[in-house]
Amino acid sequence: MTDIPLGAGAEFDRIRAIAAALGPAASGLGNDCAVLPPGFGDVVVSTDMSVEGVHFRREWLTWREIGWRAASAALSDLAAAGAEVVGLTASIGTPRDAPVDELTELMRGVGEAVTAVGGRVLGGDLSVAPVWVVDITVVGRAARPVGRSEARAGDTLWVTGALGGARAALMAWQAGGTPAAGARERFAHPVPRIAEARWLAAHGAHAMMDISDGLGGDAGHLAAASGVRLELELDQLPVHPDVVAVALARGEPIQAFAARGGEDYELLVALPKSFDAVEARRFQQDTGTVLTRIGKVRRGAGVAASFAGVPATLAGYDHFG
Amino acid sequence: MTDIPLGAGAEFDRIRAIAAALGPAASGLGNDCAVLPPGFGDVVVSTDMSVEGVHFRREWLTWREIGWRAASAALSDLAAAGAEVVGLTASIGTPRDAPVDELTELMRGVGEAVTAVGGRVLGGDLSVAPVWVVDITVVGRAARPVGRSEARAGDTLWVTGALGGARAALMAWQAGGTPAAGARERFAHPVPRIAEARWLAAHGAHAMMDISDGLGGDAGHLAAASGVRLELELDQLPVHPDVVAVALARGEPIQAFAARGGEDYELLVALPKSFDAVEARRFQQDTGTVLTRIGKVRRGAGVAASFAGVPATLAGYDHFG
Repeated sequence: MTDIPLGAGAEFDRIRAIAAALGPAASGLGNDCAVLPPGFGDVVVSTDMSVEGVHFRREWLTWREIGWRAASAALSDLAAAGAEVVGLTASIGTPRDAPVDELTELMRGVGEAVTAVGGRVLGGDLSVAPVWVVDITVVGRAARPVGRSEARAGDTLWVTGALGGARAALMAWQAGGTPAAGARERFAHPVPRIAEARWLAAHGAHAMMDISDGLGGDAGHLAAASGVRLELELDQLPVHPDVVAVALARGEPIQAFAARGGEDYELLVALPKSFDAVEARRFQQDTGTVLTRIGKVRRGAGVAASFAGVPATLAGYDHFG
Repeated sequence: MTDIPLGAGAEFDRIRAIAAALGPAASGLGNDCAVLPPGFGDVVVSTDMSVEGVHFRREWLTWREIGWRAASAALSDLAAAGAEVVGLTASIGTPRDAPVDELTELMRGVGEAVTAVGGRVLGGDLSVAPVWVVDITVVGRAARPVGRSEARAGDTLWVTGALGGARAALMAWQAGGTPAAGARERFAHPVPRIAEARWLAAHGAHAMMDISDGLGGDAGHLAAASGVRLELELDQLPVHPDVVAVALARGEPIQAFAARGGEDYELLVALPKSFDAVEARRFQQDTGTVLTRIGKVRRGAGVAASFAGVPATLAGYDHFG
């Protein structure tokens, strides 16, 4: 049960228990993407389920946004592997009386998300379910997929984009309010970092993953998979501008709020020591996305966070916690 | 909207509406499997969602059987394409308080189903949902996938195995009774016809599909996809022995009962005229599965059924009907 490279948490205990039950019937569980055996055209696959009332509410998003978001969440796992997008399948469960135009709008959003990164809708399945369920399986290609297990002591840690926007929107809705437009956009319309990830893979990324459970939890998985200790400098975190007001209203430190937020679908990446500010600037020029150094990789285990040199704590999101 | 090769029904109208909304964002919808573009190692994928209360009830099956059945339903689509099995991903939604051993038992069943046909569990996703949702995406390989669109006038129609057993179990449960052991086994433990399908593909099958919505509905899809008319001789249908008592108790003709039952996951196949009883016997020797001639392919459109020469009607299953 200990060979599944994941950090702490009830959800990950479940994955460990499944891997133990499956034994040799499973291969490579606990990664963003599954890699097919040799001879399959470098194909990688990954799957992601979005459930109404758990991952989204109809009152918050249009059907098109629900489709976009579900597809992008799954596509983000292809990004984490540095993969090129081939396409996706969509299994959709809907209440029996769901109007067909809600379904077609949702699928329009799915189609927009996958074509935006060069893929297509390859197939799907329709079912009846008590609430809307959108399960997306993405198919990509990566000659040398980047995983989570090759971060090395001496690497530096970076994140793409800015963090916390999606969580700011979520907190606003959950408090009965209306999110700021920028935060809402981050939640409703996340952009999988496919091009960014391929750039980073081509420039020597040792390990990469998408931050879908919050930086705190996801950094723990990367540390566990690579057998290293990650040191995060929270004061360096790139924070989405709409976080500030929401975090202050809740009395949470701004960076801690951003680090706790998943679902921005930005990337956490370990790059070799030789990767410097000049290269980071070139990344930004090539992709239009900011890349920020937020810490380093050391020998050891686990994740340590500090704020301007003072130790700080972090937490991730756990469905079953 | 007319280029999606499916027969009549509300569920298929939904698929047609989705294809219209997606336009060029989609490719190849309406088939059992999606075929990746050239260069991807002949990879085919397909997805299938099973929902508690819709596709199964916990009172009917063990968790292990629920997992086996969900995986086999999806694997059956690989069989329909004549594909070899690589593996599958499993997205599982569970109530928040679901015991972890229910989940591991379910996944044990998934693992048993996929290893029984030579594949492995490649990855998955866990989520919270109001009821159990098991979405399985299967990955296979087929150098020349068999589709639904190449049946030709003059072909003969055959089915593998015996039909109606799964429906007999379902009817018994729905009437508050206990199914006969053989019928229960057909529902709880369907066997995807992977080896049978590869045999048929290698022996010249023109078109093939799995009978998951009942012979009536599925024959309509094959006819629509191939632009032909199928003539079914219901008196020739191979009927599962446990159908007889259940059909008689309901006052349904035995063969009509069997033809209406989906979820036996047997195959409907169009074979060239040259395929004869000698070859059918060789199939049975090689695979251990019966193959029965049940009709023929003509010029025209739609499906016509007869019983000992007298016209008869057929119906399929439609989630949204």
